[in-house]
Amino acid sequence: MRVLAKDITQAARDSRAGELEVSGWVHRIRDMGGITFVILRDRSGLLQLVFDEKPADSSGAPLTLESVITARGVPALNEKAPGGAELRVKELKILSLAAGDLPYQVNGDVSKTGLEAILDNRILSLRNPKIRSIFKVQSTIIEAFAAYLRSRDFTEIKSSKLVSTGTEGGTNLFQVEYFDRKVCLAQSPQFYKEVMVASGLERVFEIAPVYRAEKHDTPRHINEYVSLDVEMGFIESEKDLIDLEKDLLASIFEETARKNAKDLEAWGASVPKAEAAAMAPVIPYEESLKIVNAEAAKGKNPGSRIFDINPEAERLLCEWAFREKGVDLVFVNEFPRRYRPFYTYPLGGASGGEDPGAAALTMSFDCLFRGIEITSGSRRHHEYQAFAEALPKFGLKPEDMAGYLSLLRYGCPPHGGFAIGLERLTQKILGLSSVKEASLFPRDRKRVEP
Amino acid sequence: MRVLAKDITQAARDSRAGELEVSGWVHRIRDMGGITFVILRDRSGLLQLVFDEKPADSSGAPLTLESVITARGVPALNEKAPGGAELRVKELKILSLAAGDLPYQVNGDVSKTGLEAILDNRILSLRNPKIRSIFKVQSTIIEAFAAYLRSRDFTEIKSSKLVSTGTEGGTNLFQVEYFDRKVCLAQSPQFYKEVMVASGLERVFEIAPVYRAEKHDTPRHINEYVSLDVEMGFIESEKDLIDLEKDLLASIFEETARKNAKDLEAWGASVPKAEAAAMAPVIPYEESLKIVNAEAAKGKNPGSRIFDINPEAERLLCEWAFREKGVDLVFVNEFPRRYRPFYTYPLGGASGGEDPGAAALTMSFDCLFRGIEITSGSRRHHEYQAFAEALPKFGLKPEDMAGYLSLLRYGCPPHGGFAIGLERLTQKILGLSSVKEASLFPRDRKRVEP
Repeated sequence: MRVLAKDITQAARDSRAGELEVSGWVHRIRDMGGITFVILRDRSGLLQLVFDEKPADSSGAPLTLESVITARGVPALNEKAPGGAELRVKELKILSLAAGDLPYQVNGDVSKTGLEAILDNRILSLRNPKIRSIFKVQSTIIEAFAAYLRSRDFTEIKSSKLVSTGTEGGTNLFQVEYFDRKVCLAQSPQFYKEVMVASGLERVFEIAPVYRAEKHDTPRHINEYVSLDVEMGFIESEKDLIDLEKDLLASIFEETARKNAKDLEAWGASVPKAEAAAMAPVIPYEESLKIVNAEAAKGKNPGSRIFDINPEAERLLCEWAFREKGVDLVFVNEFPRRYRPFYTYPLGGASGGEDPGAAALTMSFDCLFRGIEITSGSRRHHEYQAFAEALPKFGLKPEDMAGYLSLLRYGCPPHGGFAIGLERLTQKILGLSSVKEASLFPRDRKRVEP
Repeated sequence: MRVLAKDITQAARDSRAGELEVSGWVHRIRDMGGITFVILRDRSGLLQLVFDEKPADSSGAPLTLESVITARGVPALNEKAPGGAELRVKELKILSLAAGDLPYQVNGDVSKTGLEAILDNRILSLRNPKIRSIFKVQSTIIEAFAAYLRSRDFTEIKSSKLVSTGTEGGTNLFQVEYFDRKVCLAQSPQFYKEVMVASGLERVFEIAPVYRAEKHDTPRHINEYVSLDVEMGFIESEKDLIDLEKDLLASIFEETARKNAKDLEAWGASVPKAEAAAMAPVIPYEESLKIVNAEAAKGKNPGSRIFDINPEAERLLCEWAFREKGVDLVFVNEFPRRYRPFYTYPLGGASGGEDPGAAALTMSFDCLFRGIEITSGSRRHHEYQAFAEALPKFGLKPEDMAGYLSLLRYGCPPHGGFAIGLERLTQKILGLSSVKEASLFPRDRKRVEP
């Protein structure tokens, strides 16, 4: 019966434990002449194994790094060993002897390895405990996201990723050869989550990949990412969504702190307290720009002006919020229409209020966390007539938007939603330098392997 | 403050309740001359509203089916109303007046509507409470799948769906134009989940879409489906996986019965008891064929022979299991090599045992539920040398399998896993006639909309 590395210390304290069996990977080998120390790595952590003779397989080939073994022995307390205990090995079984030409040093210091080397050797770099811990945190984020929303009566949906047209206006789409026609990979489940709200589920969420054929190559972009999507009926404005997201993020932070303390520690990271998330400021777009420019004026180029919420503005706003409000989480709302997709609801009501132009404000928001946008959200159009009239302003033809129009034509509640980029949230929680580090197998312009 | 339909009965019993507000869709209108009954539908259920005059909007346009409304009124007990209570409306607000030309009867009898009509009018057919209930059950399946596996120390992963080659041998793949090259949509996260087991996570699961470019048009096939994938290290044989899946299915059945009693009832469906799932027989392939042919001999064509576990055999085996063991769940294991993918581990050990030919048996299994295969699983090759030697038998060149080989070259534990088709499991739990009914927006050869 196998015992995990993390349970050996307890076993060593129990004099009746007898011989135990552990299994895992050879993380480190230290040959001390007489005895050999092997650090074993399993899913629970690291454990020191002590061998009286040089460990080898039945043909005499010496044990290599990354080999997978099962070892039987007696647990013993040892203050110098990781976790304060070790296993004195009586019997070794090599399940898989690793080749000696490891192209990547699994037990090395991640901070000294470049991103390209980490991604080029992904199959091996994912074995590094610190790198692997990124994905334990990510697993908790997914779990906490779903659990919180279920507790608020949301239903999980799974919509198709193969669509005949894009919902964001048709650009930046990857094309798929689908039998005798061409279709696209979905940029977002936008339309489908709205359909499911209008179906009467009212509150839905989806966790699924989305695709953006953008040619960016930056630390904040990947071409395939996991979108944590939320959509909700019977809201008044984007403020209902901001309240929901604050609570949701607080719950994700809390669960991550509770379940992944060791993983956060490995990255020297911490999450905001739940109370701090609740205090995150909500700043209208116009006012945000004033704050940004006041902040910029204190910086290196005091004469420079910032005209929209670009990456530099996102960084400055988070710095401001952290200094003034004690939390590096900010919501910017009421974006002008020109920055938002066609389905965004105008601040002045469905017909656009007094100013129907591109400068008119909308019931929309972004959430910025630690210097970067992690969420976009808005209330959406739900009134057929006003929406049909708004389409030409966006260069869209009603005949191309038959799906949207039939959704609104037959009764649709006021509704809205948002989406959180899973990899960006993971990146920012752990302080990773690139979002690519937070994707198991990132896809960018150059990379589709492994 | 909005109250849900399901809470009105309780409110009606409370004499202090006063006026309440409900919101939802107009499911049915019955004009009785003097008064009008409107059945309101919200996410919690149905509620009867009573109007003293004909409900209409401010311009006098009459209320239509599927319009979204908010109604204010006084709750009252009424045995004849659904749920035993109704709301006597004082004030009506129409949030979205539906057009009167509904192309699909939302409040109709699903059993009298053909599959094509349901799918052609998907945006509206999903509003039918019975159809919508399919996806409430599906949401529970996803939740229970993840919750059970987390309780067994599994980590949730999200792998890329854009791959440079297929893992199942390269056929039936959809091609994607990815910048200046072509890639494929993943048929399965097979390789990635193995990488993550070997990374040291040891136990992983993934919930994500997979793609099969098969030209089938049957009630059991769709070209995009959600795969519930499981992979686990340090197993002895496929029997460890079968034990895991029995427990997992028992947990899914239990949660569905607990959370979706009304949805199951709507379909006249029930799930096997957890104890029954534990008793599901495990029958080696050769013996399964004998049972199948003995069953077939009792049927309409007693002279016919069945030579493999085809759809007819799946049906007969489940009938046999239900009659003999009281559960329509069967595991067939030890399939001959010719029926399984190249990465399947031979029953006789890595090098293939005494019989290395195509007839040699493997550590593999299928799970059949209510007449159909819902799962395929196996132990996988984990020994580099034996695997490299096995590749040519499958017509594969080692140079094309560089990813797999590097996975096994540097230490990989004995491991295996399985995948459950979410839509098939949903279909069989509810007794739906086609798997397409269990997909929100099914994709088949002809259908990529909505």
